[in-house]
Amino acid sequence: MNNKTLRTTIHSALAAGRQALSAPEAQQLCDAYGIPTPKQALAKTAAEAAKIASRFGFPVVLKIVSDDILHKTEAGGVIVGLENAADVRRAFDQLVKNAKRYKKNVGIQGVQVQQMLKGGQEVMVGAVTDPSFGKMIAFGLGGILVEVMKDITFRMTPVGKKDALSMLDSIAAAEVLRGVRGAKGVKREALADIVTKVSKLVSDFPEILEVDLNPIFATEKGARAVDVRFVVGDKPQTRQNFDQSEILAAMQRIMNPRSVAVIGASAEDGKIGNSVMKNLINGGYQGEIYPVHPKAQEILGRKAYPSVLDIAEEIDVAVFAIPAKFCAAAMDEVGRKKIPGAVMIPSGFAEVGEQALQDELIAVARKHNVRVMGPNIYGFYYTPQNLCATFCTPYDVKGKVALSSQSGGVGMSIIGFSRTTRMGVSAIVGLGNKSDLDEDDLLTYFEQDDNTQVIAMHCEDLKDGRSFAAVASRVSKKKPIVMLKAGRTALGARAAASHTGALAGNDKIYDDVLRQCGVIRAKSLNDMLQFARGLQVLPNPKGENIVIITGAGGSGVLLSDACVDNGLSLMKMPPDLDTAFRKFIPPFGAAGNPVDITGGEPPTTYANTIRYALNEPRIHSLILGYWHTIITPPMVFAKLCAEVVEEARSKGIDKPVVASLVGDVQVEEASEYLYERGIVAYPYTTELPVAVLGAKYKWARGAGVM
Amino acid sequence: MNNKTLRTTIHSALAAGRQALSAPEAQQLCDAYGIPTPKQALAKTAAEAAKIASRFGFPVVLKIVSDDILHKTEAGGVIVGLENAADVRRAFDQLVKNAKRYKKNVGIQGVQVQQMLKGGQEVMVGAVTDPSFGKMIAFGLGGILVEVMKDITFRMTPVGKKDALSMLDSIAAAEVLRGVRGAKGVKREALADIVTKVSKLVSDFPEILEVDLNPIFATEKGARAVDVRFVVGDKPQTRQNFDQSEILAAMQRIMNPRSVAVIGASAEDGKIGNSVMKNLINGGYQGEIYPVHPKAQEILGRKAYPSVLDIAEEIDVAVFAIPAKFCAAAMDEVGRKKIPGAVMIPSGFAEVGEQALQDELIAVARKHNVRVMGPNIYGFYYTPQNLCATFCTPYDVKGKVALSSQSGGVGMSIIGFSRTTRMGVSAIVGLGNKSDLDEDDLLTYFEQDDNTQVIAMHCEDLKDGRSFAAVASRVSKKKPIVMLKAGRTALGARAAASHTGALAGNDKIYDDVLRQCGVIRAKSLNDMLQFARGLQVLPNPKGENIVIITGAGGSGVLLSDACVDNGLSLMKMPPDLDTAFRKFIPPFGAAGNPVDITGGEPPTTYANTIRYALNEPRIHSLILGYWHTIITPPMVFAKLCAEVVEEARSKGIDKPVVASLVGDVQVEEASEYLYERGIVAYPYTTELPVAVLGAKYKWARGAGVM
Repeated sequence: MNNKTLRTTIHSALAAGRQALSAPEAQQLCDAYGIPTPKQALAKTAAEAAKIASRFGFPVVLKIVSDDILHKTEAGGVIVGLENAADVRRAFDQLVKNAKRYKKNVGIQGVQVQQMLKGGQEVMVGAVTDPSFGKMIAFGLGGILVEVMKDITFRMTPVGKKDALSMLDSIAAAEVLRGVRGAKGVKREALADIVTKVSKLVSDFPEILEVDLNPIFATEKGARAVDVRFVVGDKPQTRQNFDQSEILAAMQRIMNPRSVAVIGASAEDGKIGNSVMKNLINGGYQGEIYPVHPKAQEILGRKAYPSVLDIAEEIDVAVFAIPAKFCAAAMDEVGRKKIPGAVMIPSGFAEVGEQALQDELIAVARKHNVRVMGPNIYGFYYTPQNLCATFCTPYDVKGKVALSSQSGGVGMSIIGFSRTTRMGVSAIVGLGNKSDLDEDDLLTYFEQDDNTQVIAMHCEDLKDGRSFAAVASRVSKKKPIVMLKAGRTALGARAAASHTGALAGNDKIYDDVLRQCGVIRAKSLNDMLQFARGLQVLPNPKGENIVIITGAGGSGVLLSDACVDNGLSLMKMPPDLDTAFRKFIPPFGAAGNPVDITGGEPPTTYANTIRYALNEPRIHSLILGYWHTIITPPMVFAKLCAEVVEEARSKGIDKPVVASLVGDVQVEEASEYLYERGIVAYPYTTELPVAVLGAKYKWARGAGVM
Repeated sequence: MNNKTLRTTIHSALAAGRQALSAPEAQQLCDAYGIPTPKQALAKTAAEAAKIASRFGFPVVLKIVSDDILHKTEAGGVIVGLENAADVRRAFDQLVKNAKRYKKNVGIQGVQVQQMLKGGQEVMVGAVTDPSFGKMIAFGLGGILVEVMKDITFRMTPVGKKDALSMLDSIAAAEVLRGVRGAKGVKREALADIVTKVSKLVSDFPEILEVDLNPIFATEKGARAVDVRFVVGDKPQTRQNFDQSEILAAMQRIMNPRSVAVIGASAEDGKIGNSVMKNLINGGYQGEIYPVHPKAQEILGRKAYPSVLDIAEEIDVAVFAIPAKFCAAAMDEVGRKKIPGAVMIPSGFAEVGEQALQDELIAVARKHNVRVMGPNIYGFYYTPQNLCATFCTPYDVKGKVALSSQSGGVGMSIIGFSRTTRMGVSAIVGLGNKSDLDEDDLLTYFEQDDNTQVIAMHCEDLKDGRSFAAVASRVSKKKPIVMLKAGRTALGARAAASHTGALAGNDKIYDDVLRQCGVIRAKSLNDMLQFARGLQVLPNPKGENIVIITGAGGSGVLLSDACVDNGLSLMKMPPDLDTAFRKFIPPFGAAGNPVDITGGEPPTTYANTIRYALNEPRIHSLILGYWHTIITPPMVFAKLCAEVVEEARSKGIDKPVVASLVGDVQVEEASEYLYERGIVAYPYTTELPVAVLGAKYKWARGAGVM
């Protein structure tokens, strides 16, 4: 059967206004793609059903086939376990009776006779069409585990064999498939095979919106889909995207402009156009700044122009600081001037319901090939150019992390937090309404930007999840990407015509896709900020062996808890290392891991154990638990620790070191001192330093740098 | 059958060196306690087995009965689904053959013939003996859910019917028992009945260390335990406890001493005995202070004594600041002087392996009825008495929270954090080695202490979990108890002779017990500290209706996420409230919940909406999301917010209000300003204010104050 025939089948179902394919139609699809099912055939009469059953061998299942019945079980449309011909005949009549009772004037195409399988593990494979990510394939265990415990995993199409096999290990109950309680494991290849076939099917036929193969009976020998269900509908629209080189060319000019025009520049204090001018100037931007104002001759000492068209020189970025209603006209001038980037600070567009105004603006921009940041944003910072194209105050601590936010509020938090912690930043970008430029474009730029080594993003939705995933998968291999995905708990309001659809809560899909792309998901705003700050400071770990050195036994226990919480494994201490550490610590101290040096020790004990751990090649990362004492006060510890770490670095040994400092207020200053010297240190918390280390490891594993 | 007979059965098993009861013995116990099982009988021959099976009706299950075989399935010792007498005879022979192959010279008592039940939901009921909590009853779904997903819940004995029923709802897959996927629900009373019977059985017979009823087949009509297993051993020791009035009398004198002796007082800077003296004096303690020193005449202006026995006046507390080896002798003098409380700062006891020295010390104390805090502690603070009986520096911010820590490191963090946040504290107590005084004693005191309204405890283990649970259940009804239980991830090293035993990871039991006692479990050190600080500030909520008012839409989304994470429910906004809020906000703002007032609004919009929400009786708690703008700067917001809340309070309206402030660094000062005025406010985080509110609700629900 060729694809044209299948397409005809699907389209005639659509033409008949049906959402679900009938059992024989579904069977046609399964057969064409080699999805194994039990033997089955359609019977029009009771006698025919009995004849088919006898041919298949007993027991069999009978199912009503009716376009008018969506949920067969509800309608009494399924009878299982029929052991002989007489029972089959009776069941046929019963099904017809049930259907008629369920719905007046029900249309009945017949009754499906199906070989009844016994035993095996119930699993399910499905597909959904996500508005952002497109076709997604689902896998889970059948029955309670998937429906009650929501133990399900998703992958974007196309799902190849390797991905399909990885899905089997991505559910919480994965070990069931390998065999538990004396049961044999299932044939994994057979399940992976079904997954890849479903992936191919929905890719070939975008009109198939949802698929349920549930249950599939999987045994050690193979797998068969006992119940199949296809939901069809209009083909989802495909998006048109810029290609990567186009994006990069525009982003290069936007982030590194030789000149900036400020449309709506103002000499008047308190105006946004005034703040933007001041920030550009006071931020130390070295390119040309052109104020644009209908009447002014000069603004803040710079010659002003009535329009960008009046400026003779080439311009790379136009910052808008005019009311929304004037933006489209100004955009046309920007386009005619061939300015590649527009920073749309103004609000008053889609976020207040003015979608049409925004669409108009973007249509003008597209016509001229202008890329648009915003609207409804604070602007952006790019510190390598001393560029503060924003109405907020300048930021000048240069560093390796680029941050972006969809929300202005979160953006303001990024600025406040950065300032108070003196976090080194390469860029802070507001994305606002994301009418055009979005996370993909930023990633494409930051990927090749040597000033950026870590990327942290706040996002409420991805306009094009599929394109994001493609770029993020590539970029995350080179630089850590942290994402705070908001709206975690608001389930997508999708219509759930299938089980898989009902299970595809929007956030579950985000969670799975982000993990697959190697993106580190921050669970809170504070985590995102702390990861952004810490990941750029920590060097890459070279392996999984982590050692805790602690002065407080109590901290050691809490730090160990935090390791497990963050997926880190404490090194099992080899006897020779154990002996080595014991030399430095009191007899009642505990070696093993944590190395508990005990509380009353002088600075040398910290120094000796930390130095030893740094020099030992089998140890890959260090977690320090400092306890405030009179004999080793906080700043003494901080200085010795920084010194020992620096000493190792000067010998080319650079390992991740994080520290938890417990004690009186002096531990705050000591923590800051350490942080500034590349040791991620916090007071009053045992969990945060370990969480930052955990984020580093998550990235390092995914990127394969260890 | 009476209990004496059962005891004989158990003891003869023990005498024979058996850990597990045989199937007939187990059946005896089930019968005596009315635990329903399938019909079953022991057959000695194949013919007898066939005869029994015919009497029961087919199908049947055959199981080998042998004291030498612990895991029957492993030994090929179970054959199910036998449909006729011939099959039963063959199965009998096969079982015997399997057993002999499994173990040389195996002793076979016979073969158990059991009626085979069909259908129903598999569940499990079990019991374990926890070293701290004693007998614990377990409940879970049978099969994969409990074994792979670890979906299990525990209760301390005695478990009454109401508790038993609540266990059915305490597992993640609870809805399965109510019927899913067209299945009927199970008879809940039948399961609860089995739970209470197992509880009674293990209470009556402490020698039964573990119980497995797994699987139990539960249907809509009843429940039967298909496989039962009892592990027996030595009766666990029972503890001897002080009674509550004794504890309280001693604690009253320790926390409110009229006089304090410092054993090992010193005039020399840097000595612990000097720090303690200075802290007592400088802290402003108004009672008498008696330095004790072998030779000195006077220390820090106070007359010194060679021994406490030389002091004429009555003494309530002796603080020890002498080396460990001298402590027992000094304790004897303390005892003879009839001092009720000893604060044992010295280390060098059990924590360094000197258990014998500690045991000796405690024996002396017990002889004289002296209660001992520590050893190996920083001492304790009790601010209502200006009492700083510690070597750390004084702390003087009076407030309503009492904190304790098992670890000195965590204690130092409490002090540092308190100081930096100016947290109001009633007490900070070090428990250290907990040789005597522990969490129970502190709770007993704080329960009736009007200076304490919130209790926060760090703990690594509970010496007597059962006694703690009894006191905590009572106290938590009056005052919130927050606990940071460390060592979450270290599973108890218990021998697992039963499934239930293997599933009873120590932390799972702690988690269940703490929840049942109404204790709020903090998942991190920082959470414990923040909850301690915030819970005393927030008034009790009067209901579950929570409203978010936010200036930043982005914060609104993150705050909503945090509500779901913390078990809080956003009020479904009634139309009239929706209309009311709309009057205050711009047309493009969003009413509903969150109320999004949008970012560009003046102070009045915040004031109007907050005032309205406070005055509206249907709204019970408020979460504010502030966004830093030029039109409403941080301190303007903070002042208006504090004013509106104060205005409501003056009218007797006191609702919990928490706030998340996003913006530039000025939001830090604004947050502090708000916190000091009873609004739990944080900069740069949307999750922490909601977590504190969530903790308040957790307590309020458990205590029934709403």
